[in-house]
Amino acid sequence: MRVKTGVLGSTGYTGAELLRLIVNHGNVDLKWITSEKFAGKNISSVFPNLRGFIDLECSTVKDLDKLEGVDIVFSCLPHTTSMHFAKKFLDIGKRIIDLSADFRFNNINTYKDIYRIKHRYPELCEVSVYGLPELFRKQISKAQLVANPGCFATSALLGILPLLNREIISETVCVDSKAGISGGGRAPSLNSHFSEANEAISLNSITGHPQKYEVQEKVFEKFSRRIKIIFSAFNINASRGILTTIKSRLKHKTSKTDMLNAYNNFYQGEPFVRIYDDEKYISTKNVRYSNYCDIGINIQDDHIICVTALDNLGKGASAQAVQNMNIMFGLDEKTCLMNMSIYP
Amino acid sequence: MRVKTGVLGSTGYTGAELLRLIVNHGNVDLKWITSEKFAGKNISSVFPNLRGFIDLECSTVKDLDKLEGVDIVFSCLPHTTSMHFAKKFLDIGKRIIDLSADFRFNNINTYKDIYRIKHRYPELCEVSVYGLPELFRKQISKAQLVANPGCFATSALLGILPLLNREIISETVCVDSKAGISGGGRAPSLNSHFSEANEAISLNSITGHPQKYEVQEKVFEKFSRRIKIIFSAFNINASRGILTTIKSRLKHKTSKTDMLNAYNNFYQGEPFVRIYDDEKYISTKNVRYSNYCDIGINIQDDHIICVTALDNLGKGASAQAVQNMNIMFGLDEKTCLMNMSIYP
Amino acid sequence: MRVKTGVLGSTGYTGAELLRLIVNHGNVDLKWITSEKFAGKNISSVFPNLRGFIDLECSTVKDLDKLEGVDIVFSCLPHTTSMHFAKKFLDIGKRIIDLSADFRFNNINTYKDIYRIKHRYPELCEVSVYGLPELFRKQISKAQLVANPGCFATSALLGILPLLNREIISETVCVDSKAGISGGGRAPSLNSHFSEANEAISLNSITGHPQKYEVQEKVFEKFSRRIKIIFSAFNINASRGILTTIKSRLKHKTSKTDMLNAYNNFYQGEPFVRIYDDEKYISTKNVRYSNYCDIGINIQDDHIICVTALDNLGKGASAQAVQNMNIMFGLDEKTCLMNMSIYP
Amino acid sequence: MRVKTGVLGSTGYTGAELLRLIVNHGNVDLKWITSEKFAGKNISSVFPNLRGFIDLECSTVKDLDKLEGVDIVFSCLPHTTSMHFAKKFLDIGKRIIDLSADFRFNNINTYKDIYRIKHRYPELCEVSVYGLPELFRKQISKAQLVANPGCFATSALLGILPLLNREIISETVCVDSKAGISGGGRAPSLNSHFSEANEAISLNSITGHPQKYEVQEKVFEKFSRRIKIIFSAFNINASRGILTTIKSRLKHKTSKTDMLNAYNNFYQGEPFVRIYDDEKYISTKNVRYSNYCDIGINIQDDHIICVTALDNLGKGASAQAVQNMNIMFGLDEKTCLMNMSIYP
Repeated sequence: MRVKTGVLGSTGYTGAELLRLIVNHGNVDLKWITSEKFAGKNISSVFPNLRGFIDLECSTVKDLDKLEGVDIVFSCLPHTTSMHFAKKFLDIGKRIIDLSADFRFNNINTYKDIYRIKHRYPELCEVSVYGLPELFRKQISKAQLVANPGCFATSALLGILPLLNREIISETVCVDSKAGISGGGRAPSLNSHFSEANEAISLNSITGHPQKYEVQEKVFEKFSRRIKIIFSAFNINASRGILTTIKSRLKHKTSKTDMLNAYNNFYQGEPFVRIYDDEKYISTKNVRYSNYCDIGINIQDDHIICVTALDNLGKGASAQAVQNMNIMFGLDEKTCLMNMSIYP
Repeated sequence: MRVKTGVLGSTGYTGAELLRLIVNHGNVDLKWITSEKFAGKNISSVFPNLRGFIDLECSTVKDLDKLEGVDIVFSCLPHTTSMHFAKKFLDIGKRIIDLSADFRFNNINTYKDIYRIKHRYPELCEVSVYGLPELFRKQISKAQLVANPGCFATSALLGILPLLNREIISETVCVDSKAGISGGGRAPSLNSHFSEANEAISLNSITGHPQKYEVQEKVFEKFSRRIKIIFSAFNINASRGILTTIKSRLKHKTSKTDMLNAYNNFYQGEPFVRIYDDEKYISTKNVRYSNYCDIGINIQDDHIICVTALDNLGKGASAQAVQNMNIMFGLDEKTCLMNMSIYP
Repeated sequence: MRVKTGVLGSTGYTGAELLRLIVNHGNVDLKWITSEKFAGKNISSVFPNLRGFIDLECSTVKDLDKLEGVDIVFSCLPHTTSMHFAKKFLDIGKRIIDLSADFRFNNINTYKDIYRIKHRYPELCEVSVYGLPELFRKQISKAQLVANPGCFATSALLGILPLLNREIISETVCVDSKAGISGGGRAPSLNSHFSEANEAISLNSITGHPQKYEVQEKVFEKFSRRIKIIFSAFNINASRGILTTIKSRLKHKTSKTDMLNAYNNFYQGEPFVRIYDDEKYISTKNVRYSNYCDIGINIQDDHIICVTALDNLGKGASAQAVQNMNIMFGLDEKTCLMNMSIYP
Repeated sequence: MRVKTGVLGSTGYTGAELLRLIVNHGNVDLKWITSEKFAGKNISSVFPNLRGFIDLECSTVKDLDKLEGVDIVFSCLPHTTSMHFAKKFLDIGKRIIDLSADFRFNNINTYKDIYRIKHRYPELCEVSVYGLPELFRKQISKAQLVANPGCFATSALLGILPLLNREIISETVCVDSKAGISGGGRAPSLNSHFSEANEAISLNSITGHPQKYEVQEKVFEKFSRRIKIIFSAFNINASRGILTTIKSRLKHKTSKTDMLNAYNNFYQGEPFVRIYDDEKYISTKNVRYSNYCDIGINIQDDHIICVTALDNLGKGASAQAVQNMNIMFGLDEKTCLMNMSIYP
């Protein structure tokens, strides 16, 4: 089977990773890519690692009318912009995987509170499917519009979900995420300047990152349970990776073994979630460049502590987007995603 | 005034930082240094940055009988070893600042639980003073034996203390610390290998780091309050720095302004604790090489989130040790410590 | 076709990279691996990235008699040790790719001068083939024993070779190499300690690195020309990568275009050498994790300056070893090696 | 003695380093600073490490008429801009240290060739003094206008100078410099983006960096000797530091000891040039944050190889500027510059 695809906004970091994966995907034909900044340039001059692998010129969204002949479009455009192009492609019957935040919230009031802009397509928010296969695989398979989850949200949700099945934890969950610099995007800024970011752990947000609400909404949607995420996010001087700590009070005394069982059961059969008996292996080093989310846990006093590690551009963005595409088109879900992390 | 000093175990990272500071301390005469590994070698061949600044050969602790003529000894020896040498120098009337964990616990049962070894000198544990000037300045000034706090404990305590004065927070405090690699010491190991540690955030401990108990004991000692620290610690690929997140449920609704006031009041007049109105400035970059602890806070839902940043070898170890020495000898507490962080 | 293989000394960095590549090699069956340090342990506990990909216990060379059933053995053992095991496997008719320096020199006097040890198997040095496919492809295809080139030597040779065909350059060639830390191996040492290596460019050797002689010998072997390499090597704080500058006086005035033609002609059809018209793209970032060697050139005054970039564990070691294996067994030379570098 | 000073263009990296040094200079009163980008903002909001040390608002060059009351002005403005402001301050009798390239060339044709712009003040180029104290100390002491040397040029010149006294080397000198990212300035760009620059050694220039001509002119000016620098420059992923390799053919057989003597003699009494008997200590790690230039040498075949290390913002820019100021005002040349590098 061949899937014909196009990528909107291909020259940021999620685009770079997406193209890298698509190159090796035996079932995908990449028809076009767009970039406003590098319009007219060959993608291999933008990302030299693609030289010899992809030979395509960047189109611009102004040429949208010519951008046809695809089965699915990945949008790596920024939020508030992405929604308009998603709309256009949906209107002509294409399927969309949107890597921005534009369709992650079914509740458009939450969206408005966060992004200070009224959502233009509330009807699409209602039908969009949240692209976390571990939670919504069946819905994804039939979706026209998949909202690819945020990297922080993915790292938090995959750690929290097994705890929500039963009444294991209290409603307050402390989440602390540390993320590599690529999470801030490719546009140059003082924060991403090497000499500023290097040798530094710095504050991203402690007042309530947008993805806090993403987690809370999806938990409620799936488990009808309102949890309160106390979310803090930090930047660390690595190119890639998110490591997230999740802490919550256990309602009943329980053992590490019990909890490991809960995690293993919850993720039974999942190809990209790895539960470790020994949490010492949890490191972003072991997941970078991959679609894996590694999880380790332990008990401390009356709290469970869960640590998840993933690649913010992998399971946290582009690799998960490819996983979603595989599901949507009935391909083997693992196609082109069985990459191990690379070491050292 | 002149303070004659010696340094035990001078060739690790806390030793390196201590020597760097002492070089520029106008009132200190460095009489001797020891190193078992580099005995007989000039310290400037061990730490090339000291070339031209210190011209001393490393003695060994075997020469202890000759190591006299000092007013105070800094011990940078590892815990369980350090206690014996502290004892010897105390017995001949010298003052000691011990940078190991050996005298941080007044409760020797806690020490035994953590280090799986019975403390040999319980009587010294009783008289030792915990060298956090912001908490025990008066006692430090008269102490014979000062137990220099751990770097994690310092970063947690300085964030928690202002919350304990009144009944502001609940008894559970979630603490998440991210620390640079130098915290693991200078002895080569696989964990500290550049190619292993680089581009990685990895797990240090989620089951209860020793310094969790240090924090709990000191809080109880000072405030007669038993708090429960849920402590997680991670390694990140920076040479220096600890950034610690502290979260606790507020018992009553309160504002950021109120909380800032509480912090500013608590640390009024403290030369090395800086409270930031805008927490976005909190970064290990702004404190490295210095004795500062930077603190930012905000409120999220019903929780206070406090973020502290310090240099694990600065306020977290050697600079704080010098601060303690200054206090012990009636010197201006800031002598040789008014170093700003260096940027970029 | 299936190639059954074993790996000696699999738990260093060249071993890690070799295993990663072999996992994805459709024609290779990995029968056994050895490690003296991790004997009896599962390789996935040594290299967590292999979890789920290779499930093998490390044997030891003491079990050598049982280590049969293979067509080819890769030796990642250290030089002076490796030769003995190569001998043993050759004696029972196995083919060997030796990643150590033990069989790189046909001239055993050079070997002795460098390693201060008399080579025990001069007869093998005579028949060993130097595993640089761009130079000795035909010989490699029939070789029993392939000496895999050094990473510095590969980076220098690939830059110099096109200049030797004709009388383009003078006999003196200044070579300056900067290499990532993984080149120093996985054994922990002070030099490879993160806090020592980080934020540092430091001297490796300016007196004549062993691989200087490797380059000189191979140039003479192939072109009957004695060139004089003035070789300097430095360590930089990256996990991987070698970037090498090559400078030599041009005997006749020539243009960049002429020289680009010379390089393009020399490497015509070579799958893993990429010549760039615009040298600004040369960066270790564009070759890491790959088997590519990127080359850019320009003219400055009367000198040619050539810059080569490769991954010291890729084209500089393990990927090149796999390339050699592919050639030896008549497989498509590119099998499992068409990996692009990963970015960011 | 008090020196009243102002800093033009204070919010780049040379400005940051200059301010850091001035803070600790007992004889300098900082009267004003300018920044077009951060005009009106307090400098401590631009460089958080200055909080508590400097409390000044950034003026703009539009306020130039009010920027009086100083004895000397440091200009950290970019080249082609800086010259105009230097002119203005010189016209009202102020002394200037210009950290840009605008007055480094006495030969305005060279300037024009490099910067593609005709110099507006050739008469100033004639009287400006090149601020390398090891070469022009006497002239600096009386200069009105000092052109602070480039960081690459400083690292090359300090290595080459001792070889020019006598007829030691041939006229061709191969120079290879590797520099940290801060050398590219603080303005955000794709090249300085953390995720682009990290884990990379990349090409800066192999066609003739402007500072190549700076070196050649100064050598000619001092030694009446035309040497040919074959210059290559690379970026490496460190915040600070330049390490430069210098190679030249020795005209006569000579020993390392002889050459060490030549270097030691040449730099006798120089406070900031350190010659090492053992070149293995040469590392940017040992000079960062300092005004030192460390030099190691050895002989390989018929070539001398000299390696120099300095901090591009220290001896390569701002610290050297302060050294020049000390000389100009008859202060102890070492004032506020006796900082060792910081380690780890």
